[in-house]
Amino acid sequence: MKEIKVGLIGFGTVGSGLAEVLLAQQQRLEKRSGMSVRLAAVADINITELPSQFVGVKLFSDAAELIHDSDIDIIVELIGGIQPAKTFVMEAIAAGKHVVTANKALLSQEGRDIFSAAAKHGVEVGFEASVGGGIPVIKSLKEGLVANKILSIMGIMNGTANYILTRMTDEGVAFDVVLKDAQEQGFAEADPTYDIEGIDTAHKLAILMTMAYGMNITHNDIATEGISRIEPMDIEFAREFGCRIKLLAISRNHNEHVEARVHPTMVPETHLLAKIDGAFNAIHFTGDMVGNVLLYGLGAGKMPTGSAVAADIMDIARDIRSGSIGRVPSLSYLPENICDRRITPMEELFCPYYFRISAKDEPGVLSTIAGILSKNTISIESVIQKGRQTSGPVSIVMRTHTAGESAVRAALQEIDGLEVVAEPTVKIRILADE
Amino acid sequence: MKEIKVGLIGFGTVGSGLAEVLLAQQQRLEKRSGMSVRLAAVADINITELPSQFVGVKLFSDAAELIHDSDIDIIVELIGGIQPAKTFVMEAIAAGKHVVTANKALLSQEGRDIFSAAAKHGVEVGFEASVGGGIPVIKSLKEGLVANKILSIMGIMNGTANYILTRMTDEGVAFDVVLKDAQEQGFAEADPTYDIEGIDTAHKLAILMTMAYGMNITHNDIATEGISRIEPMDIEFAREFGCRIKLLAISRNHNEHVEARVHPTMVPETHLLAKIDGAFNAIHFTGDMVGNVLLYGLGAGKMPTGSAVAADIMDIARDIRSGSIGRVPSLSYLPENICDRRITPMEELFCPYYFRISAKDEPGVLSTIAGILSKNTISIESVIQKGRQTSGPVSIVMRTHTAGESAVRAALQEIDGLEVVAEPTVKIRILADE
Repeated sequence: MKEIKVGLIGFGTVGSGLAEVLLAQQQRLEKRSGMSVRLAAVADINITELPSQFVGVKLFSDAAELIHDSDIDIIVELIGGIQPAKTFVMEAIAAGKHVVTANKALLSQEGRDIFSAAAKHGVEVGFEASVGGGIPVIKSLKEGLVANKILSIMGIMNGTANYILTRMTDEGVAFDVVLKDAQEQGFAEADPTYDIEGIDTAHKLAILMTMAYGMNITHNDIATEGISRIEPMDIEFAREFGCRIKLLAISRNHNEHVEARVHPTMVPETHLLAKIDGAFNAIHFTGDMVGNVLLYGLGAGKMPTGSAVAADIMDIARDIRSGSIGRVPSLSYLPENICDRRITPMEELFCPYYFRISAKDEPGVLSTIAGILSKNTISIESVIQKGRQTSGPVSIVMRTHTAGESAVRAALQEIDGLEVVAEPTVKIRILADE
Repeated sequence: MKEIKVGLIGFGTVGSGLAEVLLAQQQRLEKRSGMSVRLAAVADINITELPSQFVGVKLFSDAAELIHDSDIDIIVELIGGIQPAKTFVMEAIAAGKHVVTANKALLSQEGRDIFSAAAKHGVEVGFEASVGGGIPVIKSLKEGLVANKILSIMGIMNGTANYILTRMTDEGVAFDVVLKDAQEQGFAEADPTYDIEGIDTAHKLAILMTMAYGMNITHNDIATEGISRIEPMDIEFAREFGCRIKLLAISRNHNEHVEARVHPTMVPETHLLAKIDGAFNAIHFTGDMVGNVLLYGLGAGKMPTGSAVAADIMDIARDIRSGSIGRVPSLSYLPENICDRRITPMEELFCPYYFRISAKDEPGVLSTIAGILSKNTISIESVIQKGRQTSGPVSIVMRTHTAGESAVRAALQEIDGLEVVAEPTVKIRILADE
């Protein structure tokens, strides 16, 4: 039986998960592929011994030794971050090794270097686990939807942010309280910046856009806002408007330009994305032939991520055995067909908006605000002004018809400059019904 | 540029859809694969001329001529039904041609013959379009979830039945009325038996179970009930119990045996499957590593089906170019590892139940019925008995705790034999919260 040997860099949560998946599924993978695919070596600077079930697996403290071990067919990078991950990946590619990684930050930022090196050395780079955890989203996009022009990508791609928003929605608790609790329970990182500020979601959107549209893009090109300013009352008002607040990645293909943005979004309750709760992810594609497709599952976690990494390993193992390396281009399009596309500036965006304005409870305030909006050609669909406060500012909440982002910015600058307005207006974009 | 030539048998709705997909996506497919994949010939007994955009495409009236045309690399069968589809597919395989089909009835019933012939002749058989229309469900199961033991499959796999149930739910209209309207609008076939009686869903479940568990199964092994007995009041009572009625395919893997059933099911509103409306399909897998994954999209239609068939064509085209035919086994497991498994008899099923009993409005009826249920160890969770009728029977509606199917059958036989019971009791299984 053909043997494929896997070398793993990084034996943390995800790395040990992959090791467990390969061990638990060894017989099944043999029955499905006729190959023996097994973990042969691990490199990790933090451990001196592997758990006892991994008998016979070599352990290195130096990743370079593993990379240059001639036994190894496929190198799996699961340490995360940019460095030293990039060095290891580039060294593996230069050594003619196939690579599998779950590292969305690395791919989103350094993807061009990595994929062009891989093309030069004729090796595969698998990255199913970088977006949507265990959900087969990369394969579906590259192969299942190959005969489609992708018209839009929308998704909930960060389980931590969605978990926090779901608990805020269900329990009416403040962001900080839920975040702290999530950290204590291990659902959020000690430094949650990437998750809650939308950066991780932008990494993933950049990867999907590259493949969907055949374009060069990094997460730096994506307008990104996080969820840390969302308050329970915004969630409550959203409910009154028939919406849920979700941190969405949104990209629409307008041919001459493509939208690329990550921000909290009010999603109509009738939309499936409004119904994705807790740590789950869902990615929604619209293809010109297939119509709407949604893929749902756990976007993170030891075993789901291990499942996706193992799927990549099997794909490469099949290509090694069949002599079909390069059978499917890594980024869906052939490298020479990946081009630059104009990214829609946020100022050119049009959508309905939600505003929460904190104003002193004085006569004429609403009329002043309405006047400013009207002057900026922003048309109000509905207003909620809750009963008088005994003291302090009141919240004036509005839902607009479709308006231009630049007009909204101008109007809010003027509104926030009013003497009666107590703090910066909260602005949340609303997903238009389609 | 490598050229791959496709021959299409059947230029009906789906066939002409595929032709349009290949034409519309030709450049995109070239940019993604570096190959020119094009429709070279069509066989259809009903047409004498192809639409003008298909210039240069040969037209045969005899499918055998197309099959034996030495120009053709891949034969696509899109006529549906068992015969002559099987003859054409077997003839193509015997002639060493790769085959793509969307024919779930054929695969579910004659799959063994077809896949063993394909193995013998070293050709591929693609069938992504046979389940879930444009949703990449077959590829996800075979490749994306390769490193998982599949613990369960649940799904809404028939768009017509789901469309009818959705309209009954939204509008409170009777089954017959919606069906007639759906037929007039072209959403349901003139003979809707396969769709509404669950047979089409059973075909699809058989295909998924074969691949998920590596087992031999045909739709004849699957206990199948349709939706034609569902009344608007059942939908209304379901709502009172916090449920939606859906026609579900359900399979659970109990190792020594596997469940395989298709029937109307009350799905708790909190479950994503309860939220799949209209002509959409959704397939929910639970894997031991990946957890829950759901794939959603249009389960039928000209262009979505064309998208899936085109994806299969591209897969095979890549294998032809790379010399990697047989890279992924057609049924996910190698043929020698596909075995017989015991299918759980329905009598061994345990789940909560909904009963709607039509009884004369007389004193003591409820107590008699409750006594019969109790004697059969069926425990009632809640009862709804609507206010007295001026005449005719009343509906007594119950939701049970988990009960055994055989006990339920015995109890309902006794209840339906009571002189006060006016018509056979409606029984709907409830999906237990997980």
